[in-house]
Amino acid sequence: MTNISQGDLDYRAWLQESPLPDGVPEAARRMAVFGPAGHPVLECAAAEWARAVRAASGESPALLAGDAGDAGDAPSVPCVAMGVLSALPSGLREAAQEALAGAHSDEAYAVLPVDGGGVALVSRAPAGVLYGAFHLIRRLRLGQPLGEPCVSSPRNDLRMLDHWDNADGTIERGYAGRSLFYRAGQIDFDEGRVRDYARLLASIGVNAIAINNVNVHEIETRFLTEAYLPHVARLAGAFRPYGIRVFLSVNFASPVDLGELPTADPLDPRVEAWWRAAADRIYRHIPDFGGFLVKADSEFRPGPFTYGRDHADGANMLARALAPHGGVVIWRAFVYNCLMDWRDRRADRARAAYDHFMPLDGRFLDNVLLQIKNGPMDFQVREPVSPLFGGLSATNVMLELQITQEYTGQQRHVCYLAPMWKQVLDFDTHARGPGSTVAEVVSGRLYGRPRGGMAGVANVGDDVNWTGHSLAQANLYAFGRLAWDPSLDPAEIAREWTRLTFGDDPYVVRAVEGILMASWPAYEAYTAPLGVGWMVNPGHHDGPNPEGYEYSKWGTYHYADWQGVGVDRTMATGTGYTGQYHEPVRSLYEHLETCPDELLLFFHHVPYTHVLHSGKTVIQHIYDAHFDGVEAVVWMVEAWRRLEGRIDPVRFERVMARLEDQVQRAIEWRDVINTYFYRKCGIPDERGRHIYP
Amino acid sequence: MTNISQGDLDYRAWLQESPLPDGVPEAARRMAVFGPAGHPVLECAAAEWARAVRAASGESPALLAGDAGDAGDAPSVPCVAMGVLSALPSGLREAAQEALAGAHSDEAYAVLPVDGGGVALVSRAPAGVLYGAFHLIRRLRLGQPLGEPCVSSPRNDLRMLDHWDNADGTIERGYAGRSLFYRAGQIDFDEGRVRDYARLLASIGVNAIAINNVNVHEIETRFLTEAYLPHVARLAGAFRPYGIRVFLSVNFASPVDLGELPTADPLDPRVEAWWRAAADRIYRHIPDFGGFLVKADSEFRPGPFTYGRDHADGANMLARALAPHGGVVIWRAFVYNCLMDWRDRRADRARAAYDHFMPLDGRFLDNVLLQIKNGPMDFQVREPVSPLFGGLSATNVMLELQITQEYTGQQRHVCYLAPMWKQVLDFDTHARGPGSTVAEVVSGRLYGRPRGGMAGVANVGDDVNWTGHSLAQANLYAFGRLAWDPSLDPAEIAREWTRLTFGDDPYVVRAVEGILMASWPAYEAYTAPLGVGWMVNPGHHDGPNPEGYEYSKWGTYHYADWQGVGVDRTMATGTGYTGQYHEPVRSLYEHLETCPDELLLFFHHVPYTHVLHSGKTVIQHIYDAHFDGVEAVVWMVEAWRRLEGRIDPVRFERVMARLEDQVQRAIEWRDVINTYFYRKCGIPDERGRHIYP
Repeated sequence: MTNISQGDLDYRAWLQESPLPDGVPEAARRMAVFGPAGHPVLECAAAEWARAVRAASGESPALLAGDAGDAGDAPSVPCVAMGVLSALPSGLREAAQEALAGAHSDEAYAVLPVDGGGVALVSRAPAGVLYGAFHLIRRLRLGQPLGEPCVSSPRNDLRMLDHWDNADGTIERGYAGRSLFYRAGQIDFDEGRVRDYARLLASIGVNAIAINNVNVHEIETRFLTEAYLPHVARLAGAFRPYGIRVFLSVNFASPVDLGELPTADPLDPRVEAWWRAAADRIYRHIPDFGGFLVKADSEFRPGPFTYGRDHADGANMLARALAPHGGVVIWRAFVYNCLMDWRDRRADRARAAYDHFMPLDGRFLDNVLLQIKNGPMDFQVREPVSPLFGGLSATNVMLELQITQEYTGQQRHVCYLAPMWKQVLDFDTHARGPGSTVAEVVSGRLYGRPRGGMAGVANVGDDVNWTGHSLAQANLYAFGRLAWDPSLDPAEIAREWTRLTFGDDPYVVRAVEGILMASWPAYEAYTAPLGVGWMVNPGHHDGPNPEGYEYSKWGTYHYADWQGVGVDRTMATGTGYTGQYHEPVRSLYEHLETCPDELLLFFHHVPYTHVLHSGKTVIQHIYDAHFDGVEAVVWMVEAWRRLEGRIDPVRFERVMARLEDQVQRAIEWRDVINTYFYRKCGIPDERGRHIYP
Repeated sequence: MTNISQGDLDYRAWLQESPLPDGVPEAARRMAVFGPAGHPVLECAAAEWARAVRAASGESPALLAGDAGDAGDAPSVPCVAMGVLSALPSGLREAAQEALAGAHSDEAYAVLPVDGGGVALVSRAPAGVLYGAFHLIRRLRLGQPLGEPCVSSPRNDLRMLDHWDNADGTIERGYAGRSLFYRAGQIDFDEGRVRDYARLLASIGVNAIAINNVNVHEIETRFLTEAYLPHVARLAGAFRPYGIRVFLSVNFASPVDLGELPTADPLDPRVEAWWRAAADRIYRHIPDFGGFLVKADSEFRPGPFTYGRDHADGANMLARALAPHGGVVIWRAFVYNCLMDWRDRRADRARAAYDHFMPLDGRFLDNVLLQIKNGPMDFQVREPVSPLFGGLSATNVMLELQITQEYTGQQRHVCYLAPMWKQVLDFDTHARGPGSTVAEVVSGRLYGRPRGGMAGVANVGDDVNWTGHSLAQANLYAFGRLAWDPSLDPAEIAREWTRLTFGDDPYVVRAVEGILMASWPAYEAYTAPLGVGWMVNPGHHDGPNPEGYEYSKWGTYHYADWQGVGVDRTMATGTGYTGQYHEPVRSLYEHLETCPDELLLFFHHVPYTHVLHSGKTVIQHIYDAHFDGVEAVVWMVEAWRRLEGRIDPVRFERVMARLEDQVQRAIEWRDVINTYFYRKCGIPDERGRHIYP
């Protein structure tokens, strides 16, 4: 499959290999490598750089003396010299040491100009050299000066992808084909394809991957056993040269489900011993194994509650098993009662994670991270930020984003999510006064926590373009870039991705960047309004169904009636959820006068005639947004159509077909939502546009 | 499995085998059998009778001279003498001939008293003797005089069960476990269990069975091939002694999907030859094979439309292949556009079957039957009768009922469907003036058609009690009894079933009959109101979701808004569907003044304040019905609870658990539907009961 696919430019994603018209700079014609000989990551870095030079110029760079392992003199001719600090020639080492002195992470890299036109790429660790190599490859492809000095250190230690892949080859919430890792109940993969995937990930700085669904089914429960571990190890081996450590999602009830113990009680010594043995076994096969990802006591998954224990008991028991090996436990905070009663307007799923985990703050061991979804519900197109960010102060936390577009168009709609993620990262929790952003929280800096990170639920499958919709590659790219550096600008990322992916025609770059940047606002406009969410078909979550979840047990209600709509989550008259935020955020959301329009219906139940800050009534806003949202998609289609002939026909047609389909889907959303509200309230559109009765 | 299950009284269903306190009448102590020696059906009849006598009295009846095959003298001592007409002793033959003279069907049987206290059971065919034997067994168990003269001829030639079983062992719309016929992609069954199933079916007169789902998937498509036919034949062999002929659901695209032809065009001679060869092959394995059941051009199934042909072209081609062997084609009329647009209020799925098939009336060959669902939509709890009954006059038709409770409680709710079916059978189409009932149409009598029948979608799986809910056995029983004799009274059938199943305690009989007779009205009361239907969760169809299908592509809308609800299907202002009925039915439904309340919203869109014939407004009716419906279930629970100790504890607890669960489900329905309408219109309950806002 790999060979067939490589002919397709989509397969290369943002690592295109076309020759560059201007060739490569002089320094790129030669290279030198310094570091531990035979280190797979360092070798990989060198090979990637050489491959990029060869692709750009038609010629491999000459390898100079100063080969890996040789800490001799610095090269005397202009070249790209890359290596780990300890192995550098003494002349170079001092400057490198100085450049990297302030870098928090061993994965940081520095680029230094060298006298005579050379470039040095240095890091304390081989992985840093690898990230630096991909940084230089970006510069090469973007025509930027290779030697421009810079130091880059990842803001987050863990930059992780969570794969919701099942052993049967399906992917939960996957919209890009079947799993890259599994077929028919077996760990069974195309090594070349997985390596190609690993390099895509490494090129954006991802360093960890959970290889199986957090909903751990029967077969995946056995991944911990001798029958499966050799295969898990093989998969880990494919990722290793790219600096990516493998994690397993584990079933909390494994000792029971595997028939080995009568209990999974985390305080039972037999259970602790069982997991310790399991961890020892895993590390015998995979010495650099990352650790466990756990969904427990959530949506019918087993957990410590079964035994009257709490999440800290459960997580710490696993953490003790992993600690001797340097592994960590990533424990998901996505815990709520999924058998709620729609009749009870005081019950509020949004409150659940905070209510569950705040009392446990400080009780988790240092090698536990709590993985928290960006919002309190579940990856809706618009949610406030989870108040656990800034709430927890004595617990390691990770931010969980959803790259796969479960609720944001399922890769049938283009929906570039980086602007949403950026709002999340920049959100000021005010936990320790102004500037207490989510980015500062999850990096661990705000509270000086030893660990932190960002995880994204992968949007990748075995489709030739990895992500189903070619433009959805931009989401994967942006996730990695933001996880490395949350200060990046989403528009800038979009531009960079477009140039790397489609080349440097400014007309193309403007159009694609424009489509990407317009896409999330458009999707929000033509779907559920003003933060209310959940107007989707139950189960698969595709397409509009305004009351599909209204009377369910999932805690996902909007309470629309003949007068108004929205959820009262205020302290004064509602569920009290606003009280989970620090001031001044708490008051901002609590009061109708200050609550941002885009979250109005998340926090308040208001009449359709309520006037927004925008000056429009709620109902008129709904109508306008839905007509405007469709217009935005029509514009995207036109903008893309004008690219015909400017990009390769395969990718042009592939995206064109999805965009044309998106128009139909957007129209369906528009008409259903407008009609739904019109049928509720009977208020006509003041601009007289057609709303189906 | 068979052995384990037989200890459970539920497994015996209505063929209980407890000893009778009064033993058996004198005549039952001896038996004689006349007919072709070794005929499996006749032997089966004799064995069933002997088994029943043995169970009732502890002793097998003595077999007198006049054994099968011996047409000698009539027995001279009181006995039960059974046999086929041609083999009877001459003394008996004349009286039997006279009794059966008026019987239309060879499956008719007559019971005659014989001088000296004996009883004769006679038929023209072995199957008739079998049905008569089960008739005598009923008499025996019910304590009725064995010798009471009677002649009974089945009103419908085909009395058929359609199994929607898949080769993977699942059952589409099945609520009673896994398939009895398949496991893991194979035809793989427990012979004893299938035989036990066959005798249950024969005991209620069923004589045909389609063994696989009308949605024919990949594996089932291959049932026509040499690889599978020996196994199909084995299954047919298990049913044969009970007079049941096996049918296959076939995939119209079989020649293409099996890779043997490039087309499935019914007018292509290669296709006709292919099917002729397939039929020849099948009959080599199964000489008494029944024929094909076909769902074509419906819900994404392939059909003749693909090739620009019509249903008559498709059905007749298959019919020609089967005709030389005496087989028939049962072609489903369930054809509609399942990609409808909810915006278009003129489009109407209810019209579809009539619009499709009326133009073809007279074009179908004599060995084709058109199988028509009772209503124009899809087995909702309340629909009008399909206007194709009485519409088609030159086509053989069958009535399709759904025994499995897809939309009527999924065997979690008790819902005895015979009263609904009875209304359908008694519905007067006025096609040839008064008295043109559906029963007369489907039997073939009204238009003198050569063939007719009734099919029920089976509600059976491998659960120990066959039907999941023990009381759902009554639906299977009633289906068979009504298919044999549509003039039977549903309450009488309920009583008969209860006495056979639970014994003769009058307290038990009254309670169970009461529960059964109350159940369909209750279910209707607490679910979707006034014939509007479809307020269910999409996909699995369980539980309330008032707008779950409102904006779908399935053509299933109710158009509720802030003013009113219902579908205008009138000729004057709506879809014109009422025009598909003969007068006076057409006018009855067309006009608000005469339209029956229970179908009001099926035919008219009315304001919530519209006053029904009952004197209530629509909205008040909705509220009242939903409160009353729950009360009815609460009553059922109490009524059942009082049976503790009067029936065996296993069945008592099993039904108790389901009834208690039903109360919760009914409450959920009540509250969702009441709140839904309250939120639409804001009109409070005039009796002040609590409706959640």
